[in-house]
Amino acid sequence: MKLRVIGLMSGTSLDGIDAALVDIDGSGTADLSWKLIEFVSVPYTAEQRRLIHDAIVRGGTAAICEVHALLGEWFADAALAVCERARVTAVDVDVIGSHGQTVWHRPPKDGARGATLQIGDPATIAERTGIPVVSDFRSRDVAAGGEGAPLVAWMDRALFSVPSRRRVLQNIGGMGNLTWLPAREDAQPLLAFDTGPGNALIDAAVEIATRGLHTYDEGGARAARGTVDRALLDELLAHEFFAHKPPRSTGREIFGRPYVERLIQRVAPTSEAEWDNLIATLTALTAHSIARACHDWLSERGFDEVVVTGGGARNATLMRMIQDLLKPVPVLPGDTLGIDADAKEALAFAAFAWAHVHRIPANVPEATGAEGLRVLGSFTPGAAERTPLEFVTPT
Amino acid sequence: MKLRVIGLMSGTSLDGIDAALVDIDGSGTADLSWKLIEFVSVPYTAEQRRLIHDAIVRGGTAAICEVHALLGEWFADAALAVCERARVTAVDVDVIGSHGQTVWHRPPKDGARGATLQIGDPATIAERTGIPVVSDFRSRDVAAGGEGAPLVAWMDRALFSVPSRRRVLQNIGGMGNLTWLPAREDAQPLLAFDTGPGNALIDAAVEIATRGLHTYDEGGARAARGTVDRALLDELLAHEFFAHKPPRSTGREIFGRPYVERLIQRVAPTSEAEWDNLIATLTALTAHSIARACHDWLSERGFDEVVVTGGGARNATLMRMIQDLLKPVPVLPGDTLGIDADAKEALAFAAFAWAHVHRIPANVPEATGAEGLRVLGSFTPGAAERTPLEFVTPT
Repeated sequence: MKLRVIGLMSGTSLDGIDAALVDIDGSGTADLSWKLIEFVSVPYTAEQRRLIHDAIVRGGTAAICEVHALLGEWFADAALAVCERARVTAVDVDVIGSHGQTVWHRPPKDGARGATLQIGDPATIAERTGIPVVSDFRSRDVAAGGEGAPLVAWMDRALFSVPSRRRVLQNIGGMGNLTWLPAREDAQPLLAFDTGPGNALIDAAVEIATRGLHTYDEGGARAARGTVDRALLDELLAHEFFAHKPPRSTGREIFGRPYVERLIQRVAPTSEAEWDNLIATLTALTAHSIARACHDWLSERGFDEVVVTGGGARNATLMRMIQDLLKPVPVLPGDTLGIDADAKEALAFAAFAWAHVHRIPANVPEATGAEGLRVLGSFTPGAAERTPLEFVTPT
Repeated sequence: MKLRVIGLMSGTSLDGIDAALVDIDGSGTADLSWKLIEFVSVPYTAEQRRLIHDAIVRGGTAAICEVHALLGEWFADAALAVCERARVTAVDVDVIGSHGQTVWHRPPKDGARGATLQIGDPATIAERTGIPVVSDFRSRDVAAGGEGAPLVAWMDRALFSVPSRRRVLQNIGGMGNLTWLPAREDAQPLLAFDTGPGNALIDAAVEIATRGLHTYDEGGARAARGTVDRALLDELLAHEFFAHKPPRSTGREIFGRPYVERLIQRVAPTSEAEWDNLIATLTALTAHSIARACHDWLSERGFDEVVVTGGGARNATLMRMIQDLLKPVPVLPGDTLGIDADAKEALAFAAFAWAHVHRIPANVPEATGAEGLRVLGSFTPGAAERTPLEFVTPT
């Protein structure tokens, strides 16, 4: 069924809300087609970032509750902004897919199920926009014994696999995750897992180094000026996560600001040059963790190109490091996919809402380790005066 | 449409999970009929109580996330327990309505919208039981400018109004809330609002007095032995909440353990008799707040009987105090309603799930202050192999 869908994404980088307006058509995964109509990225203000960050890090119930409601308002604003940019009225949008903001995520461990918590009130999004909302895509996969991540694998295959080439889609947001896609004509299972930190550690180091003046290493300029501390890098790469066999997932609980704070206490950079060296080393950590993931888990399958999306694709130093480590395989920027590289995650959550309405399972058990296929997300109705959305029963 | 529904409730008292299995039939509010098939109340273990309490009081994103998942498991267990007791298989249950556990609730204030957060993962309930779940009933009303409470007013009228008598339904859980119902033949609006603390303060005082050995004043025995400190009672009744014109709602954020801890620091009871006096005074506070609510806001409308449900109905001292204050109006125990008095809240959330599936708005704007009628809750699908539930479009 053809639906006009908005996908909303607020990643672990806390840089803002991405909203993609997409037309999606088809009867299932095999014949799914899509057209990106418009994309906006609404950056958080410093105050918004602070509120979210404090709620996540300090975690008082009152603060989490308040930010849950506020994020709902901001997500709604972003959805209305992408409509306005596209000159589409909200009543003409069929459904919104909202990933929400992950405040905590613990993968399954030692036989115990995982736990995950996303906030960003879907009732508020539905109330402000009038559009029905599908939200909280991770929880069902986690309840079924999965990692709840990486989530985007289903959409990666449906939307971005290509004939006769084996593609790696490497997303670098706060965390890094990859999806290995066989050539389109090849029916073998895909593979997807988290590679480790994306920009989160680099961002935290820049923010501490500049006392909050900058929140990321623009273009990778500081990393380019610095020198990688090879001994420190080897030590950081010895973290058990990087040796973990997929399925695997990670988050700020492991690779977050406290990790960087501990590192700074040890390294104690005093000059700008020493800060640059630390930033270069953390950039190399992301690059090496990605390259190692490709070597360790994709060598047997083989891969013909690596396409990088997310904010990390704009860090030239990081891109160069990854290319050096993976040559001769080409490492390409995300616009290779025919979309703004930043739009990919938001597009994914639009596709997830489409899948929910069609009762199509959108988790990939080989990627998450879940017991089986599951329909993801919860549905919150739109305005009462709307014609209710009909759910499609898979045939 | 006739649906077999399970309602799940975990109240602010943190005493356990109530599960009601109900058959509900009708095409709308006017012709709704119901039959309670089975009811179970599964008490929390001391460890479960401690986990929930710590997550709510101390917060911490990790703790809230873990308890969100755990509560999902425990809610699922309670749903399966009521099925087993009734010898009904889960596949024959159409939908579950789960209120979840409120971890924070801030009503609208000074023109700013309210915020509310319920946990107890619906995806986990759906995964374990295979039954679709409607959850999070408060949020939409809050997003529409309402208090998100009291929620049960719609069900109170649909299920419990009677011909030619004006009824007050007073629920005494952790908090107290009442619904004033005109006689069944009378079309005038109902009135519903929170009366203030229910058992929460009494329970906290008993728990502190007995160092956790007891968690409530069984039968009101301690309050019966104690003497009410009239001066202290008058001071407590001077709290601004009790003068607040409805719509109004409250919670543990105001009348919770910290409130009792501050009181104990001042009163500093040393003997058992002094503790009994404090417990008697807190019991009188609940009784007086209920009586005052009836006098202040229901006198003009008039009321012919007061029916008390929830755990407070089993506190004989509290019931006697309320009766003394409201005579000659009869104060009746909840079984007057033809159901176990404890089952009423769980029954309400079953009715809410039924309403959601029928796209019937279940908030009462006169009671919550919301801008208008809203369909409440979010829908999480059941097992994939089930015949999907059809949503009914209101005619």
